[in-house]
Amino acid sequence: MVISELGELVLVERIRSLFRTQDERVLVSIGDDAAVWSYNGSRIIATTDLMAEGVHFDYTYTTFYQSGFKLISSNVSDVYAMGGVPDFAFLDIAMTGDRAEEEFDEFIRGVKDACTLYRMSVQGGDVSSSLKGDFYSAAVIGHGDRTVTRSGARTGDRIYLTGATGDAAAGLEYLKVLKKRVPLEKGDAFVRHGMEDSVLECVRRHLLPVARNSGEIAAKATAMIDVSDGLLIDLFRLCSESGKGALLYEEKIPVSEGTRRIALSLHRDCRDFVLSGGEDYELLLTSGSQSIGGCVRIGEIIDAGFYFADAAGTRKPFAPKGYTHFVDKRKI
Amino acid sequence: MVISELGELVLVERIRSLFRTQDERVLVSIGDDAAVWSYNGSRIIATTDLMAEGVHFDYTYTTFYQSGFKLISSNVSDVYAMGGVPDFAFLDIAMTGDRAEEEFDEFIRGVKDACTLYRMSVQGGDVSSSLKGDFYSAAVIGHGDRTVTRSGARTGDRIYLTGATGDAAAGLEYLKVLKKRVPLEKGDAFVRHGMEDSVLECVRRHLLPVARNSGEIAAKATAMIDVSDGLLIDLFRLCSESGKGALLYEEKIPVSEGTRRIALSLHRDCRDFVLSGGEDYELLLTSGSQSIGGCVRIGEIIDAGFYFADAAGTRKPFAPKGYTHFVDKRKI
Repeated sequence: MVISELGELVLVERIRSLFRTQDERVLVSIGDDAAVWSYNGSRIIATTDLMAEGVHFDYTYTTFYQSGFKLISSNVSDVYAMGGVPDFAFLDIAMTGDRAEEEFDEFIRGVKDACTLYRMSVQGGDVSSSLKGDFYSAAVIGHGDRTVTRSGARTGDRIYLTGATGDAAAGLEYLKVLKKRVPLEKGDAFVRHGMEDSVLECVRRHLLPVARNSGEIAAKATAMIDVSDGLLIDLFRLCSESGKGALLYEEKIPVSEGTRRIALSLHRDCRDFVLSGGEDYELLLTSGSQSIGGCVRIGEIIDAGFYFADAAGTRKPFAPKGYTHFVDKRKI
Repeated sequence: MVISELGELVLVERIRSLFRTQDERVLVSIGDDAAVWSYNGSRIIATTDLMAEGVHFDYTYTTFYQSGFKLISSNVSDVYAMGGVPDFAFLDIAMTGDRAEEEFDEFIRGVKDACTLYRMSVQGGDVSSSLKGDFYSAAVIGHGDRTVTRSGARTGDRIYLTGATGDAAAGLEYLKVLKKRVPLEKGDAFVRHGMEDSVLECVRRHLLPVARNSGEIAAKATAMIDVSDGLLIDLFRLCSESGKGALLYEEKIPVSEGTRRIALSLHRDCRDFVLSGGEDYELLLTSGSQSIGGCVRIGEIIDAGFYFADAAGTRKPFAPKGYTHFVDKRKI
């Protein structure tokens, strides 16, 4: 059987079972957003993420700057999802030799600006040519006094979201119609061309995503994950690791104005974007708290099963949908 | 200008200058084998390395097992070169979707066996498909009470090598003629086919390199680097970072029986392999000690310039040669 038929979930599970560790220093291993271990009482958090041209990004819609920026954001998001603080990045870059000097510089500038935003520094890496297609990988290492895993959700906990999901996926669909790059890094005025504010915001969330700093939220969370592959699939992951189910209040799930507009203009159901769209980098968390500032309560943890509940309380089961193909990336 | 014309040294220098850090926790930054920083007194060492199909390896000569094994060895070598102990690995794997399940499993088994050898565990990573060609990237994070940089060499220090260089390059040339895989992981008897022991050893050093544990050596070293790109170029790097020059005792530089045999049979000068061949993962170090167990003394550090000295003491200047093209990898 070829690996695309097996699917990445099987591949990841294979790696996970093969590399089960006995190391007592390890607090969180494969199967969470990032790994956590302890060196003499210092809690270290580390994660890596890769981006392959044609799979994770397409230079038809994406500038080199945006690729560099997103590479860092996607890694930082995993550290934030553990309740951690990112400190250092390592860059592995393989580019085809015919890339222009300016394109390399633009990529690095995107990395640099993202690192500045997250108060991180690049401490090493590797540069190589590639025969075909660019390949970027980054490792981000950080620290945290207290870490939040995917596995701590308890029955009765509320489910919170730091913001609307679906924007990045809607933005990407918009770009696929537009069929050109939107160099937001040059300023909105340069790219607007009549694009409505809320639509521009979706495009921005796809091209220049900013990871959500869990900061004070982390202290209240019993479990947390970043929404990188889709709200439902990432909720499913959190619940799987916690051995729980979830009830989602259907009408409480936030939908942005931009996602509504794009869905309408493309004759798509905006729920597809909101529930299954990837790369939003919002945080999904569970907590016993009645409310958490800046977060929307969208449901509650139950013993088992996955259901939507409407305003009348009627339950309807759902299955997680999201990036489940091998052509999409999957976190080990 | 395209980046292949610029060359990776220029690209790396650009990254290095852009990411100069002010972070007081950072003890060693870009420009050494690995980065080192301190978290509450714990000294952390981290490095990443990538391998791109068609650039770093060719499946005509290499098995998937060997790619996985080498990916880990090349990273571990960088941690050893700092005098550190590797602890955790992170894997980023992008493979074309038509790879067989067995090929994926073989790759992972190579990673696993290397991790067992170095007493490490895999703690995370990312899996994706690739449109064309496989890309592997690994991060290795370790620790060390005392770290050895490239920059500590002093005039008068002896230059030591942990073993003969050139074997991996000679082994590769041999494989290019053989034009087939040598699955050493299945046992020597399976692959020997009349191959002479010393030649088989060169092939092994190319296909299944084992990083040299600096262990007790590190305590005596004033500066250290792993020979990944070639003896002369890596010596040049160590000297550059130390602001020194080097005098090499030409006839003291070790040449293995296998490298001699392969050079002879291919009508090549074995010095090319020994002085400029990459991927040997021997350690090159400087020390004030008169001798270091298990190491060969090959020269001494001088104030400036690079010279070979023959038995009569006659000096002849040399320029570093090694993997200097963009098609080859370069450590940031």
